[in-house]
Amino acid sequence: MSGGLDSCVASACARDEGHDLYFLHVSYGQLTREREARAFREIADYYGVKGRLVTTADHLRAVGGSALTDPKIAVPENDLDPSIIPVTYVPFRNANLLSIAVSWAEVLGAQYIYIGVVEEDSSGYPDCRESFFSAFEKTVSEGTRPETDIRIKTPLIRMNKKEIVLKGLELAVPLEKTWSCYRNQKRACGSCDSCLLRLRGFRAAGVTDPIIYVNGSRGNGLRLTIDD
Amino acid sequence: MSGGLDSCVASACARDEGHDLYFLHVSYGQLTREREARAFREIADYYGVKGRLVTTADHLRAVGGSALTDPKIAVPENDLDPSIIPVTYVPFRNANLLSIAVSWAEVLGAQYIYIGVVEEDSSGYPDCRESFFSAFEKTVSEGTRPETDIRIKTPLIRMNKKEIVLKGLELAVPLEKTWSCYRNQKRACGSCDSCLLRLRGFRAAGVTDPIIYVNGSRGNGLRLTIDD
Repeated sequence: MSGGLDSCVASACARDEGHDLYFLHVSYGQLTREREARAFREIADYYGVKGRLVTTADHLRAVGGSALTDPKIAVPENDLDPSIIPVTYVPFRNANLLSIAVSWAEVLGAQYIYIGVVEEDSSGYPDCRESFFSAFEKTVSEGTRPETDIRIKTPLIRMNKKEIVLKGLELAVPLEKTWSCYRNQKRACGSCDSCLLRLRGFRAAGVTDPIIYVNGSRGNGLRLTIDD
Repeated sequence: MSGGLDSCVASACARDEGHDLYFLHVSYGQLTREREARAFREIADYYGVKGRLVTTADHLRAVGGSALTDPKIAVPENDLDPSIIPVTYVPFRNANLLSIAVSWAEVLGAQYIYIGVVEEDSSGYPDCRESFFSAFEKTVSEGTRPETDIRIKTPLIRMNKKEIVLKGLELAVPLEKTWSCYRNQKRACGSCDSCLLRLRGFRAAGVTDPIIYVNGSRGNGLRLTIDD
């Protein structure tokens, strides 16, 4: 649970499917970590989760190689070319996050790990592809106790942002508590990859994004500068 | 590189195969972490490594479930029954360690990750099996950039401790700098799983373990109480 739109909707899916919720939040030196941690707490409170684990993966900042963790690499504007892997890719991040989740899940005896990744509408991260999650699930099966049976659930993986927004509305997700911006912590910038994808999703769904953007408006597509 | 015998010999194998060395050390709340960190530093200095990354995986302590990370679970004596997974198993630890290593390796452009795991002579940890590493390598291929090509190397996986000691002698490994004990930080206890396996290896190889045990002797098998 990063605190973003996708992980919040994925959590709502888990609850909708009848599961008790345990929330994992990992701070890995991303620029907006305080704001994300606040979103995490507010959403965890909203759902009354049965347990929460907040931890760090500082090595992701230490190794760098991404605009999300290295202040010297600028977060790009309007960088949604699907043919290249963007500089916001954090090397092998999802394997790090899922490995933490599996260690916890094995101790809890949990059966499912939900992760709010999106393949088609993502920014081209290799660790957001279905083939990655299939391989990882096999790794979990081989690397845990025989009696442990943990499945990775990716309920949003084939959705686009419009469908995620609509699913969030259907499940009464507190969208106003989520935070997606890669760059700012007070008001969302409206121009980084993550803001663009979010704004595009709300516009396509025909609804107004309830969070406030830097120009003071709510995010009904006003700052959207790409053609789609 | 934990600082133990196996990771030290695995590092020597990597160097013997012509590679530049970068050492990763992960502290995860294990009881002997200060002593292990000292062994790591001394061995890294000995080999003159090109880079070192020291980080934490505190969530492994937070989730507990292992005698290595939870002080309330006793480190057992003479617990080498191969039919059960021992309480020193740290849930999905090697996936956590390898995920950190892959993130670093991808930024470095490194091709090989060496890990000093042992399947047959291990204590029955599921994340020490060849099938686990094969699955993990597939996960790495799926979850990293197309141009990234990282292989997991397990040079010791089919060795027993005798063969590892002999390989260490062959490669002039500084065995006196390594630390294996799960329980103590000043003098090795000689009776935890890890000490027992180490002592058995040295005895079978017909050489004296150069480290000092709690009874003041060097580890030539004096405290070995199992039949093998």
